[in-house]
Amino acid sequence: MNNELQYKDCIEACHQTMNACNVCYVSCLKEYDIAMLRDCITLTRECAGICSFAAEAMTRMSPYVADICALCIKMCESCADECEKQMQDHCKHCAEVCRKCAQICRGMCYVA
Amino acid sequence: MNNELQYKDCIEACHQTMNACNVCYVSCLKEYDIAMLRDCITLTRECAGICSFAAEAMTRMSPYVADICALCIKMCESCADECEKQMQDHCKHCAEVCRKCAQICRGMCYVA
Amino acid sequence: MNNELQYKDCIEACHQTMNACNVCYVSCLKEYDIAMLRDCITLTRECAGICSFAAEAMTRMSPYVADICALCIKMCESCADECEKQMQDHCKHCAEVCRKCAQICRGMCYVA
Amino acid sequence: MNNELQYKDCIEACHQTMNACNVCYVSCLKEYDIAMLRDCITLTRECAGICSFAAEAMTRMSPYVADICALCIKMCESCADECEKQMQDHCKHCAEVCRKCAQICRGMCYVA
Repeated sequence: MNNELQYKDCIEACHQTMNACNVCYVSCLKEYDIAMLRDCITLTRECAGICSFAAEAMTRMSPYVADICALCIKMCESCADECEKQMQDHCKHCAEVCRKCAQICRGMCYVA
Repeated sequence: MNNELQYKDCIEACHQTMNACNVCYVSCLKEYDIAMLRDCITLTRECAGICSFAAEAMTRMSPYVADICALCIKMCESCADECEKQMQDHCKHCAEVCRKCAQICRGMCYVA
Repeated sequence: MNNELQYKDCIEACHQTMNACNVCYVSCLKEYDIAMLRDCITLTRECAGICSFAAEAMTRMSPYVADICALCIKMCESCADECEKQMQDHCKHCAEVCRKCAQICRGMCYVA
Repeated sequence: MNNELQYKDCIEACHQTMNACNVCYVSCLKEYDIAMLRDCITLTRECAGICSFAAEAMTRMSPYVADICALCIKMCESCADECEKQMQDHCKHCAEVCRKCAQICRGMCYVA
């Protein structure tokens, strides 16, 4: 895959993950069992933040894309770990999207 | 069009505009005639910033989506006005994407 | 007060408010009665986000400072309204800081 | 120094650096010799972005403060390296503030 396509794929993955994290976040806040979801609320906000930051960095061809994506991988994996423990559909979906994003970000760590 | 689709469309339009603005920004910085492009550099950064902010607000169903999109419209239109004055392809493209985004954001001002 | 001082004051107020909102947010997430604090969690995140955005816009002398500060006022007031309903100290403190920030932002709406 | 003070110091250092970077950025854009300042424009934007991101992460006691501050150190050092090559006062000042921020951020890498 060439560089331009790889950037495009990763920007899209980060945007989708930001979206899934924030949907999960908002849904958690509405759950009856909100007290069980404290860590999920914390980590989806963190993950949405770095995904948005990473996507913007990639669109401006930041010299730090590799480092930012490395950080994004870490946050995506932690968020997925936490979401997988939950039984809500929005958590399960968020976990899947985070794992996929981490995988795509890995490709960027050797590109930029 | 229903609410959910309208959100989805507008999030995507904001992401595309953030991308086009940052591509234009980076390209302006490489131009020989960079001195002619000072305002373009300023306004594409501003526009990329609000588009990213608006997209993230929409994904978390912010209560301020209408206000944020109203601000996004204003910045998209100004950025398009400036980019249209330039002859570079990246400026022309950015202007088009900004105009379209402003139009789609208008729909959000009556939704949220 | 001259322009430069007014900017300095408002940047500082926005940073303090971002800080108070996020401290309140984190504290709410740890409360036993988290279910009562859903709106507070939502609004402190929103308010922290616009305060950070406004502060950064002011430091780069954005042409949109007046509009961004107008939006910041609205979010600070709503966040204060919600926080004042709560009995926790972190909420009371957050409300005070938000009100003061809204007042200082008002000065920026006629400056930029 | 205790943890709370260390956070407070680092948040303030990041805010000051974000400010110095954006002041330098805006000043570079107005310089006659703008063509000499392309890298400075690029790196001050990057550095302002991560400083703002780091400060917000610290105010919400992010679990990733150490990683984010490590990235902030890297961007502050690169920005300082570039700004030191320039003769403008705003570049010299920015370089100093970036170096100091990097130093303070180092303390956070062992705290969080």
